[in-house]
Amino acid sequence: MKLWSGRLSGSMDETFARLNNSLPFDRRLAQVDVLGSIAWAKALVEPGVLTPEEAAAIVNGLQSILEDFKSGKEPFVESDEDIHTAVERLLSERIGSLAGKLHTGRSRNDQVATDFRLWLMDALPHLAVLLLELQATLIARAEQDRGILLPGYTHFQQAQPILLSHWWLAHFWALQRDRERLAEALRRTRKMPLGSGALAGTAYPIDRFALAQDLGFDAPSPNSLDAVSDRDFAAEVLFWAALTGVHMSRLAEALILYTTAEFGFLSLADAFSTGSSLMPQKKNPDPLELVRSKSGLLIGRLTGLLAMLKGLPSAYDKDLQDDKPPVFEAVDLLELLLPVMSGLISTLTVYPERTRAAIGWPVMATDLADYLVGRGVPFRQAHTAVAQAVSRAEALGINLPDLPLGEWQKIHLAFGEDLFAVFDPERAVRRRSAYGGTAPQAVEEQIRLAKMTLEGPRERG
Amino acid sequence: MKLWSGRLSGSMDETFARLNNSLPFDRRLAQVDVLGSIAWAKALVEPGVLTPEEAAAIVNGLQSILEDFKSGKEPFVESDEDIHTAVERLLSERIGSLAGKLHTGRSRNDQVATDFRLWLMDALPHLAVLLLELQATLIARAEQDRGILLPGYTHFQQAQPILLSHWWLAHFWALQRDRERLAEALRRTRKMPLGSGALAGTAYPIDRFALAQDLGFDAPSPNSLDAVSDRDFAAEVLFWAALTGVHMSRLAEALILYTTAEFGFLSLADAFSTGSSLMPQKKNPDPLELVRSKSGLLIGRLTGLLAMLKGLPSAYDKDLQDDKPPVFEAVDLLELLLPVMSGLISTLTVYPERTRAAIGWPVMATDLADYLVGRGVPFRQAHTAVAQAVSRAEALGINLPDLPLGEWQKIHLAFGEDLFAVFDPERAVRRRSAYGGTAPQAVEEQIRLAKMTLEGPRERG
Amino acid sequence: MKLWSGRLSGSMDETFARLNNSLPFDRRLAQVDVLGSIAWAKALVEPGVLTPEEAAAIVNGLQSILEDFKSGKEPFVESDEDIHTAVERLLSERIGSLAGKLHTGRSRNDQVATDFRLWLMDALPHLAVLLLELQATLIARAEQDRGILLPGYTHFQQAQPILLSHWWLAHFWALQRDRERLAEALRRTRKMPLGSGALAGTAYPIDRFALAQDLGFDAPSPNSLDAVSDRDFAAEVLFWAALTGVHMSRLAEALILYTTAEFGFLSLADAFSTGSSLMPQKKNPDPLELVRSKSGLLIGRLTGLLAMLKGLPSAYDKDLQDDKPPVFEAVDLLELLLPVMSGLISTLTVYPERTRAAIGWPVMATDLADYLVGRGVPFRQAHTAVAQAVSRAEALGINLPDLPLGEWQKIHLAFGEDLFAVFDPERAVRRRSAYGGTAPQAVEEQIRLAKMTLEGPRERG
Amino acid sequence: MKLWSGRLSGSMDETFARLNNSLPFDRRLAQVDVLGSIAWAKALVEPGVLTPEEAAAIVNGLQSILEDFKSGKEPFVESDEDIHTAVERLLSERIGSLAGKLHTGRSRNDQVATDFRLWLMDALPHLAVLLLELQATLIARAEQDRGILLPGYTHFQQAQPILLSHWWLAHFWALQRDRERLAEALRRTRKMPLGSGALAGTAYPIDRFALAQDLGFDAPSPNSLDAVSDRDFAAEVLFWAALTGVHMSRLAEALILYTTAEFGFLSLADAFSTGSSLMPQKKNPDPLELVRSKSGLLIGRLTGLLAMLKGLPSAYDKDLQDDKPPVFEAVDLLELLLPVMSGLISTLTVYPERTRAAIGWPVMATDLADYLVGRGVPFRQAHTAVAQAVSRAEALGINLPDLPLGEWQKIHLAFGEDLFAVFDPERAVRRRSAYGGTAPQAVEEQIRLAKMTLEGPRERG
Repeated sequence: MKLWSGRLSGSMDETFARLNNSLPFDRRLAQVDVLGSIAWAKALVEPGVLTPEEAAAIVNGLQSILEDFKSGKEPFVESDEDIHTAVERLLSERIGSLAGKLHTGRSRNDQVATDFRLWLMDALPHLAVLLLELQATLIARAEQDRGILLPGYTHFQQAQPILLSHWWLAHFWALQRDRERLAEALRRTRKMPLGSGALAGTAYPIDRFALAQDLGFDAPSPNSLDAVSDRDFAAEVLFWAALTGVHMSRLAEALILYTTAEFGFLSLADAFSTGSSLMPQKKNPDPLELVRSKSGLLIGRLTGLLAMLKGLPSAYDKDLQDDKPPVFEAVDLLELLLPVMSGLISTLTVYPERTRAAIGWPVMATDLADYLVGRGVPFRQAHTAVAQAVSRAEALGINLPDLPLGEWQKIHLAFGEDLFAVFDPERAVRRRSAYGGTAPQAVEEQIRLAKMTLEGPRERG
Repeated sequence: MKLWSGRLSGSMDETFARLNNSLPFDRRLAQVDVLGSIAWAKALVEPGVLTPEEAAAIVNGLQSILEDFKSGKEPFVESDEDIHTAVERLLSERIGSLAGKLHTGRSRNDQVATDFRLWLMDALPHLAVLLLELQATLIARAEQDRGILLPGYTHFQQAQPILLSHWWLAHFWALQRDRERLAEALRRTRKMPLGSGALAGTAYPIDRFALAQDLGFDAPSPNSLDAVSDRDFAAEVLFWAALTGVHMSRLAEALILYTTAEFGFLSLADAFSTGSSLMPQKKNPDPLELVRSKSGLLIGRLTGLLAMLKGLPSAYDKDLQDDKPPVFEAVDLLELLLPVMSGLISTLTVYPERTRAAIGWPVMATDLADYLVGRGVPFRQAHTAVAQAVSRAEALGINLPDLPLGEWQKIHLAFGEDLFAVFDPERAVRRRSAYGGTAPQAVEEQIRLAKMTLEGPRERG
Repeated sequence: MKLWSGRLSGSMDETFARLNNSLPFDRRLAQVDVLGSIAWAKALVEPGVLTPEEAAAIVNGLQSILEDFKSGKEPFVESDEDIHTAVERLLSERIGSLAGKLHTGRSRNDQVATDFRLWLMDALPHLAVLLLELQATLIARAEQDRGILLPGYTHFQQAQPILLSHWWLAHFWALQRDRERLAEALRRTRKMPLGSGALAGTAYPIDRFALAQDLGFDAPSPNSLDAVSDRDFAAEVLFWAALTGVHMSRLAEALILYTTAEFGFLSLADAFSTGSSLMPQKKNPDPLELVRSKSGLLIGRLTGLLAMLKGLPSAYDKDLQDDKPPVFEAVDLLELLLPVMSGLISTLTVYPERTRAAIGWPVMATDLADYLVGRGVPFRQAHTAVAQAVSRAEALGINLPDLPLGEWQKIHLAFGEDLFAVFDPERAVRRRSAYGGTAPQAVEEQIRLAKMTLEGPRERG
Repeated sequence: MKLWSGRLSGSMDETFARLNNSLPFDRRLAQVDVLGSIAWAKALVEPGVLTPEEAAAIVNGLQSILEDFKSGKEPFVESDEDIHTAVERLLSERIGSLAGKLHTGRSRNDQVATDFRLWLMDALPHLAVLLLELQATLIARAEQDRGILLPGYTHFQQAQPILLSHWWLAHFWALQRDRERLAEALRRTRKMPLGSGALAGTAYPIDRFALAQDLGFDAPSPNSLDAVSDRDFAAEVLFWAALTGVHMSRLAEALILYTTAEFGFLSLADAFSTGSSLMPQKKNPDPLELVRSKSGLLIGRLTGLLAMLKGLPSAYDKDLQDDKPPVFEAVDLLELLLPVMSGLISTLTVYPERTRAAIGWPVMATDLADYLVGRGVPFRQAHTAVAQAVSRAEALGINLPDLPLGEWQKIHLAFGEDLFAVFDPERAVRRRSAYGGTAPQAVEEQIRLAKMTLEGPRERG
């Protein structure tokens, strides 16, 4: 069935029909499409388009279709062009020609924009919960892994010792920003296009504020032209997904490194590992690699949608039909990636003795410079002096703490016997106690703040 | 000068030195870098790193450098590796070895993240004003162009008549969402990384809350590792810029079409047109085409940054140095595109008689179907009937209003003599009076709402 | 079944198992996977891994699996992790433990890279044929539409008259470059990874040249590490697809414009049009809009793959598993878009009288300047003079040919009575007779060249 | 000066003028623009547009401008809109009104397309040389590092031992494909648009084949419409740059890992390292990180151009002006990245004893399975048996070679005393001797092949 059979003659070209058919993906809108139609049927009573009895009959018919959808039935036929067409066909099969009154004052343009938003209003809060669970997992790790030291890196090179709890929490805050952005995108999604018609508004005096409330929207859209062609919310969701993907990818990349034989800081649970078809010894961190690759593909989905939108003039064009596959794919993906990350992180094993042993002496260099600063040497000179000591030890082929005091003093006279007390990673960590630092007490404070952030009043989304 | 000369021997490879040098772009951070250093110098007094006198001397030196920067001087030398190095060198030339105390407890990692945010805290509010001016221009056009009818399009095909004011306002709302997103991005930009050191926090008891207030931030960052490697704010600015670009591109595309000989709806002021080197008659809408192309390049800038970020493990890596050029370019671009669009729109000429004349009779088809609905015909049947009438007129080679009543009634008996009164675009427009529709009174209401939105309480950003 | 069950204990996490399962997409490699295994079984005889009898039994088993696949059976079970695992399981069910000998000296890493290339070696030549058919369609239109004039545009503004045949052929040459690129990508796809093992090469003395020949490759890959991690061919295919998409999108965009009421140059066949659910009069160019949108998504697929590849260190990582979905999707899409474009173009109707009538007088301006050049006026002065005449006619509100001779001569004395003969679009077109120009004879020559290009000796791809 | 001053009144809007001005980037076309004009002046003699004397005077004037450009002078003024305008202004200042004859039959549309191609015909061969030098560096390393063993990785996990020479060469072949693609892009760049006019061809009987030869092109473009709007060559260059960037990024990523304290396989020369402003001990691999980040930005440049092109209808639009900045930036970048990589690789130090020592016993697992295969055990069973042995040793907390024979035989009776001889990485490497494998003799063969490939007959590009 086509909803526009009167105008064109002959049948659609078969390749074009395949290209045109959106049912393979917009069938996912089935339930929200029916819900939107139920609300529309009710709204048509007040303007007199439907009698209360007609509306009730239509609503009944739609309810029975909804029940079918909810129970997993997909009673679609080859000729259904899209979900809206399919629902209208099913309705007319069930209640006869009265079904033909439902589409009064409405267009597939405002209908699909409404459906898509309704679908996201259901999906996004679920993603917010999954994000929150991953954040909670990171807090739990921060608490569980208290007191574990490991080298902190910049440029992949050992930089300064840090607490593992601090490291887990760094990822918490990135996800917190993701959750904020998701809530904001959801807020902008909660505007109702229904009642915008094809582009110019509906010609029937529908109370769109009541309709919006009925469907769970915050408000009706203020401009019908904008309403049918606005896909900002889709772009925002894809940007959110891409950036959340980037955050998980960065975390995954680090975890992959930490599971190598060379680092050996941690190992994944067998439930989150795979083997090799050829190499019997292999235990591979596949989930982390898939997180990483899929975050690359998410960037592409965002790019693709933006490139598509850019080419349109203002107004509705069929191009907009292609907004849904990338968003559906992104939502599906995040619904898989987020719990995998939560599960993987909560089940991995940390080897505290290995992370501690990995801390090389040179990472104490900043503290050595600070030691000189404490003796009145300007930092820049102190920095140079310690750098020379590091080079000297390297040239002698010895560890930095084994460099004799005489050598230190040859470099700078302010070095004294007590410099060797600096070679204590725990002390170094304790020193970074300003707000946001890696000192144990600062990290405890941070854990409290993180928990408050999780439990705090959240937006509806 | 290098800030790390003690560790490595020999000089840098010359091609690498060119690759490594960020001064060509980070010189734009010159003023905020000095401001950050002034605040840092003051903050070093409380922990006893600097005496009040030392701090005063450093601040004086920095003030003189700031004056130079403000007056347009750029006293940089070949060997300055980046803006931070350059400022430290200048300071030490002016106040001697005391300058070497300033970098205590600070790293270029937290410093550059702070600088970049400060720079955006200056630039983004200005962009918000430019956005607001473009929105105000659209409202002004909506008021000025009251009562002008033109064809509304979907799929580039004439769909239903609309008011030009309604069309201008459609673009207003897209920009309103852009302004909201910009304010949100700015809010997340206002977190201060300073005091995070290289990655682990600062080892001196700095009051980071006071420091944040001093520099105009909302709060210090809660995790030092996250603080030095978080570039979400840069990605958000680029997403904002790309989507704002998409909105302007869509508007530009439509305006380009409307200035063609074939549409002829409007013409650009000569001040916003160009000619051809070969074809003497040409008057080209170059600004609109450049808006369109540059919005394509903005998508690429976003993509590039995300691809760059995705590849990093958690922690600071040098890759992050490349966050700035795309953001600087995007900000520069929007600072040019937004006023060009405002100027072009406020000076273009609309030809109301041409837009009115362009409305073809077939665009009345929906109203004809509604006419049948008013006579009790279910919409779906009404739709089919009118479609047949359109085809019939086309087959006869006549205009739709010239199709004799007999022909109409052959198609559906519900058609009566009064159907011809439907052929009135003004009437069609008036009928779309529900909230958000194109009816004159709905548009007036919308103008009021738009004005309130502009004048309403805005966030600080 | 897993191919690595000995190493890890317990079962896979359920969400991870879903993330990890590639069978939903790599089932498309089913037939080539079996073909690769058949060749591998044969190759294992020479090194003595299999006796000829064992090889024959394995090949028989594989043949029966292949028959199943060819007849559309997909005898997969939930626990099949990927297509390779599924085939090995099926084989062992059919021939018993002998199946366990097949994977000797081989890894899924070289196997999947081989499969993917084999799949493309089948798919790409088919795409080349579809491209060629679209090119042939354009030539056919160029021949059919001989002699039709229309305005040529730059900046969307009328520029100079051209022949429609010339316009169709412009798109021919873009597709010709696409076909060249496709052949080059195919050439690089025809390198065989099989025999590279997991990364280090195979430990059995396989004759990889013979194996490559057996499977239809040009040559074996020269480096095993590169062979298992090289996905250049996938990136090339996606770039080819994206650029081909861009070419079709540009053509589609122009055709959409030409079908508007305002241009009215052509109309699509009903078989390539759709209507509206609300507006009975609508006849929409949906296929062209879908070509346009899908070309946007293709850009995203390329971006996504490149972003994914960029993040990898050299060597095989699981991320590479995600190379296939974007390529499969791109190939599927092009297999749909190319024939739709061919069908749409060969069935559309051109309105020569409307294209001719659309040519405005100002498009003769370049020829008027050339007229002055013919009378010895330097082109730059001639250009200025004609521009003034255009402005003068505009100011007087008359058509350019109606500007009296006196006015022309007030602008430049070199204008004479015969200037009015210039107002002849056919003459203008005839003048552009240099190679590559729009003159009828040049276009005929171009048609001949285009045909030769199509028929000429093509690369194998 | 504008080249189209007669048509429009008043002056350009100041913000638009800034947006419109392309001289900041197209000044790079200065020399090729003059060369194109010299050739065009000569070509105008045959059709009688210029006398030989006039042509000579113009050529002389242009030569003097070219000399200025070559000596670094850039005599541009504020009002020059683009490089073509600037050159025409300079010429008219030097030779008077005769300059006004040069632009006859030519447009900036065909001129800029010609200039851009000429510029690339100069730049791309240079890039090919830089690529070749990097390839030669890799061969040199492969020869220099003969006999060094290191762990080979898949999924970042140790997989099998390989030769370092083999690893270097893996990257050689990726660059070889880049060089092929570059040559192909260059071949398509060598088509001359000049003589296509604005869009319709030139109205003067220019011999475009002779003109093409004069300028060093392979042939004139066959269709004027296509010629002025084709930017495939720009897209191809950006794709080439992005993929070459990806290859260097993957190599860089691996080298960064290998320089960590944890891997410790190699160290960069000080000339290719940087230090830290805060941490005195740091020696950072900045060049590799910048290679990595810039390859991300290159992906964005490709995306941006494709998104820009996609939005255009067929024909020349001003948008195309924005094709140049991303290409110039990409070329500049590769001209820096390629030599930095060559320099860095040729000067880094490898620590053979550390790479050898890093090889863990589990990497012998495949060879152990092959050992069982040699005793008639089907590979799949052998794989399982060895996996169990690995797990058993892990459970016992001992190294795999320390697992007593009894334990091995409990797992599979085919294990014998000689299994311990398998624990020899050199033997493992020697076994992978099939073409393309990591065995010393196979690698020698590969080095010979690589050298032949470099020295072999190259395309002109």
